[in-house]
Amino acid sequence: METVDTATIPAARREPPPFRLDEDEEINPAFVDAVSDAVGAGDRGRVSLLVEDLHQADVGTLLEALEPEERPQLIELLGRDFDFSALTEVDDAVREEILEELETETVAEGVRDLDSDDAVYILEDLTDADQAEILQHLPAVERVALQRALDYPEDSAGRLMQTEFIAVPPFWTVGQTIDFMRETEELPDTFYEIFVVDPGIRLLGSVPLDKLLRSKRPVRISGIMLDEPDQVEATDQQEDVARRFQRYNLVSAAVIDEAGRLVGVITIDDVVDVIEEEADAEIKALGGVKPDEELSDNVWEIARGRFTWLLVNLLTAILASAVIGLFEKSLEKMVALAVLMPIVASMGGNAGTQSMTVAVRALATRNLGRGNVRRIVGREILVGLINGVAFALVMGVVAVVWFGLPSLGPVIGLALIVTLTSAAFGGIVIPVLLDRFEVDPAVASGPFVTTITDVVGFFAFLGIATLWFGLG
Amino acid sequence: METVDTATIPAARREPPPFRLDEDEEINPAFVDAVSDAVGAGDRGRVSLLVEDLHQADVGTLLEALEPEERPQLIELLGRDFDFSALTEVDDAVREEILEELETETVAEGVRDLDSDDAVYILEDLTDADQAEILQHLPAVERVALQRALDYPEDSAGRLMQTEFIAVPPFWTVGQTIDFMRETEELPDTFYEIFVVDPGIRLLGSVPLDKLLRSKRPVRISGIMLDEPDQVEATDQQEDVARRFQRYNLVSAAVIDEAGRLVGVITIDDVVDVIEEEADAEIKALGGVKPDEELSDNVWEIARGRFTWLLVNLLTAILASAVIGLFEKSLEKMVALAVLMPIVASMGGNAGTQSMTVAVRALATRNLGRGNVRRIVGREILVGLINGVAFALVMGVVAVVWFGLPSLGPVIGLALIVTLTSAAFGGIVIPVLLDRFEVDPAVASGPFVTTITDVVGFFAFLGIATLWFGLG
Repeated sequence: METVDTATIPAARREPPPFRLDEDEEINPAFVDAVSDAVGAGDRGRVSLLVEDLHQADVGTLLEALEPEERPQLIELLGRDFDFSALTEVDDAVREEILEELETETVAEGVRDLDSDDAVYILEDLTDADQAEILQHLPAVERVALQRALDYPEDSAGRLMQTEFIAVPPFWTVGQTIDFMRETEELPDTFYEIFVVDPGIRLLGSVPLDKLLRSKRPVRISGIMLDEPDQVEATDQQEDVARRFQRYNLVSAAVIDEAGRLVGVITIDDVVDVIEEEADAEIKALGGVKPDEELSDNVWEIARGRFTWLLVNLLTAILASAVIGLFEKSLEKMVALAVLMPIVASMGGNAGTQSMTVAVRALATRNLGRGNVRRIVGREILVGLINGVAFALVMGVVAVVWFGLPSLGPVIGLALIVTLTSAAFGGIVIPVLLDRFEVDPAVASGPFVTTITDVVGFFAFLGIATLWFGLG
Repeated sequence: METVDTATIPAARREPPPFRLDEDEEINPAFVDAVSDAVGAGDRGRVSLLVEDLHQADVGTLLEALEPEERPQLIELLGRDFDFSALTEVDDAVREEILEELETETVAEGVRDLDSDDAVYILEDLTDADQAEILQHLPAVERVALQRALDYPEDSAGRLMQTEFIAVPPFWTVGQTIDFMRETEELPDTFYEIFVVDPGIRLLGSVPLDKLLRSKRPVRISGIMLDEPDQVEATDQQEDVARRFQRYNLVSAAVIDEAGRLVGVITIDDVVDVIEEEADAEIKALGGVKPDEELSDNVWEIARGRFTWLLVNLLTAILASAVIGLFEKSLEKMVALAVLMPIVASMGGNAGTQSMTVAVRALATRNLGRGNVRRIVGREILVGLINGVAFALVMGVVAVVWFGLPSLGPVIGLALIVTLTSAAFGGIVIPVLLDRFEVDPAVASGPFVTTITDVVGFFAFLGIATLWFGLG
């Protein structure tokens, strides 16, 4: 018999918390339930115990796993123990919902403790009025810094940067610099280089931390600084910044304004998020899904977003059907054509998608440019032709055996050669042209390529059949 | 009149080098031509002048832009001035070709100067015999370190890591550590943390550089180290390592072997490449292109790689045609069905692709798991149903107007509802099931989803029409 009086044990300690992550590093449903129960009971002690030391990324996952109404409750219960950087790890829709529910003071308080890049990330999707209200609760220094970052255009380097950095004059020594850093309380959370500036805060150079550590104390900063530090402009597109980081293996880069003044620093962890977002947007665009569709969106938002794409597709499908309509007589005379025609169109569609995928990828990674576009287009056409011939042989035999009609072989074979070659051509040329006219090829190529492959596929097959068999 | 005797100016200085990058930061064709001419003339001085100070990433781009036979010539001409890390920036096929042409001594010499992660990257695709020959030319220490990294499985953390790192005992002071770093010549090129180990080189903790810099000289390392440093195992998959870096915003992580010994360090720049490769592979897989297809591959390799995918697609297309074949009689009696049927299949295909894209993405980013799979599947079915009804109305009206046959409206409408709902269901459930059976959903989902949408699309439309109009 147990004789312990559970009432004497503080509620928070009564049962051991379940494992928070399972073996796949996914969040454990039993843990989510435990948090949910504690939040429901308003048991601050138990909630604290449960989420204590949990990494902000996992707190984000936890928030998403909770019921919508529990999320702000959890944050209010934790109070000062809640690290607002967890909010940078949740879907936009979830974050907006949470921020709407929280008291302005709570948000202002939470945002103040963050590095400015995280604060901007949390504030930027709010309405101007909400932003102003929260900023108003902040001390002047933080307010000005955040306001300046928010004034830069969306998706610019200025939005991504952190305004906390260390800048020293060139005439300081390594020793002075190290002592300064030892004595200063308010340093950025993490940093990989310090900057060298003139009295007008114009960027003169940078010193990576490892270089600083390896230099002797009396050495002057001007003697060890890199004269051409990695830098981007605050108005640069985040996408271009990410490409620079990737191309030159950067870990951090200075951000300067139009006047060449140092205004912030961008670090690789923010860039990794941009890279991931870019890839995400590209994959979704190619699949006909809006780049900003998120798992937490509701059914109506999602259905409406996808409707647009399907409507565009319906128009191309109707166009293809109109082509078939031209050959109604042939189809009436020879129903085998109706059975076989989707094969031609489908093969064309897939071959076109292959070329298009390669083109969109190469454009996104800047591997396809004026220098090699001719060679790549030529190569794609050749690949289309080779596979066209290959499948002409395969499908020619299949069609003859299937319908016992020898002349169906050359007809479907010829149609496949024409269709696969055009598909390859369209698949590579359309994205290149769209890119040249500054239309995102990942978003817009699909419908054009499909139209070409469907129209050419049906027209070639039914047209050749009509001529060959004299069905006109 | 010019009176300068050009013969007295060294050839290398005679004309100013053209801009190396154009305004889009793409490599300037005129620059490539200039390098090509200098290489052709065997003019070492001019080649050096042209590529001097060019970033390794841009040297990589330059190599790819040159003719294949000029690439090894450029490297031999530059001799010790050529930084072999540029070879990590070119396509695999280009690198293999270059390495084949170079002298073993040149490669061994070049690889010796690299950080071990770059050296492994360059060596890992060579045959065992070639690797052994090159390793033989290296000093014992480098040889053993590289051999150990190469012994880890492909795509493991062990292949990605750098074996150069700084490890100190916990009882050292900050001062001792900094002095050690100042006095040691052979430090890694860049590093962001130092490690703390016991005499058996087992990992005890880590100290980020900024923390080290901010601590006073007499402080003991044990007092400022992180007790649970970010770490991965050498045999971990690179993909999993990349996800950890992304999730927890890491910049560097220790790599330990089975015995808990520190064997290397992985830094974010290598992980960024893995993230980019993963995204690239996912996009290509969804588009029916082999993940390792590269722009520099030749026509035959590419055609063969894509043939496989098209062959799978041909089988699903034949299956769909076989379904149409079941309704030959109906088609003979009513040719409008042949005209309209591709619309139903095409809409289904696109709706299926949308759901599939969302599922593949959510699985890749670990946002779709046991916790939310029911909700997401339910939501997709609902989205499919909503858009099915919407397009039933749109297309119902179009069909009636087009063919002047009122009962075509409900027939195609019903078919669209059935097809779009099944497409959404298949699009979400197939990737989830494949993932559960540990088959890559990005590679394998497409054919299954297409089969479902085509078969259901044709069967629903032709079946409903046959029943409705009594065509059987």
